[in-house]
Amino acid sequence: MAKRIAYLGPAGTFTEAAAILYDPEADLIPLSSIAAVAAAVDFDKAEEGVVPIENSIEGSVTDTLDLLIHDSTLAIRRELVIPIEHCLLVKPGVTMDGIESIHSHTQALGQCRHYIEGRFPGAQAVAALSTAAAVEDMMAGPSSAAAIGTARAAEIYGAEVLARGIQDNQANFTRFVALAHRDHPPTGSDKTSLCFSFSDDRAGILYNVLGHFATRNINLAKVESRPNKESLGRYVFLVDLDGHREDPLVRDALACMEAEVSMLKVFGSYPKYRVS
Amino acid sequence: MAKRIAYLGPAGTFTEAAAILYDPEADLIPLSSIAAVAAAVDFDKAEEGVVPIENSIEGSVTDTLDLLIHDSTLAIRRELVIPIEHCLLVKPGVTMDGIESIHSHTQALGQCRHYIEGRFPGAQAVAALSTAAAVEDMMAGPSSAAAIGTARAAEIYGAEVLARGIQDNQANFTRFVALAHRDHPPTGSDKTSLCFSFSDDRAGILYNVLGHFATRNINLAKVESRPNKESLGRYVFLVDLDGHREDPLVRDALACMEAEVSMLKVFGSYPKYRVS
Repeated sequence: MAKRIAYLGPAGTFTEAAAILYDPEADLIPLSSIAAVAAAVDFDKAEEGVVPIENSIEGSVTDTLDLLIHDSTLAIRRELVIPIEHCLLVKPGVTMDGIESIHSHTQALGQCRHYIEGRFPGAQAVAALSTAAAVEDMMAGPSSAAAIGTARAAEIYGAEVLARGIQDNQANFTRFVALAHRDHPPTGSDKTSLCFSFSDDRAGILYNVLGHFATRNINLAKVESRPNKESLGRYVFLVDLDGHREDPLVRDALACMEAEVSMLKVFGSYPKYRVS
Repeated sequence: MAKRIAYLGPAGTFTEAAAILYDPEADLIPLSSIAAVAAAVDFDKAEEGVVPIENSIEGSVTDTLDLLIHDSTLAIRRELVIPIEHCLLVKPGVTMDGIESIHSHTQALGQCRHYIEGRFPGAQAVAALSTAAAVEDMMAGPSSAAAIGTARAAEIYGAEVLARGIQDNQANFTRFVALAHRDHPPTGSDKTSLCFSFSDDRAGILYNVLGHFATRNINLAKVESRPNKESLGRYVFLVDLDGHREDPLVRDALACMEAEVSMLKVFGSYPKYRVS
């Protein structure tokens, strides 16, 4: 039986592209929120759930981080990286000249700001809940409307691609994670993601904790902070490190830090993604 | 002459409330983007510019961080913190019963998700470019529409407040900064914000840099990372520390770290905000 993979939909988003890349044979289940994707895995409606976690321009997808920190016990089992190519979509037959409004998610509008200002200086930006929803809105609107979305959304909704690769920064990649009940066994080239917090904010406490990795020569691929949601200025720290949680050095470091933090949650260990 | 303060508008947003709190006598100039606010100060159309930088639930306002890192030489001169109270606004005379769609910025929709799902389970969420634009959209739409916005937006646009404080988490604060050509002289209770990056990602290099603060007992109020926008997995680190950049210990620490980083940019030192 094909694996069931829930993903942040609708069809035609970059997350769908990541899910297809992950398993072209899977039964894909589009859901309308990151929380719904996690719930589908929790309730065994799907074996895994694919959600975006980080973009090379915009930074982290905070809904996914907050889900991992606060609201889910699912593990990260895989990571996937895909290049983001924004396209300008219109109704069939529409040309560049008549475009007066441009629909998209605010992030996509922001990522194509210079292109829009240069080509369509007077056009009105219209916010949508996703790039795919923007394409739907555009198809239901007047022929002076355009949308920023994927080439696949053009196929799905019957739109025409007027221009490809319209993002201002060409080095635009998004990292996705597949969430599951269990993380991945060691492969020899792994990453581990975790978060921790402190009950006080003594000077140097973060420094001490990072020292457990530094002294073992464990590379930290990422250090980030998120608000703890209780008071402004208190944070949960997130770390991605090179190595598997079952590696003896990583296990040692985690044991040492556990004594110093008020909360430690390992999201999982998984193979490092190689861009092919 | 009154000070001219540019801010991220339109009127009726929380940023306007922060600008009024900062200087009730100022001439306020609403602008449509964070970049436009910085440009107004750069070109001396305003002495200072107020923009949001961090919310206690959502985390950092990445447009403001990226402006400070990449696109501006302006300094942070002040910080301001205000509580966020989302209100449900409708056209005058409309009641709870008939509401079928709810307009707002995606962040405000997210912050009131439980309230919306509980009270209006079938309602359609409609994205807008700001909470104030959502109120305008709602006033121009059918009477089955509601918007999430500020009480002041209700006044400005002639809407009615049906419910106050509808955010799911009551501990919801936003921190704003005032940008100017110069930062603030020392007051004895100051913060300093800065960013730095490395040209390689040797294990432990971040640890070494943080050590310059830890060994001097300088508390780091915040450590965060942002993508460097050149490649996925390379970051710029942002730090808020307790103390003024002219304090001898802070000056020392900055001098030591300067030798180890490939880029160091001090955004400024400014008085710590006290919530009154």
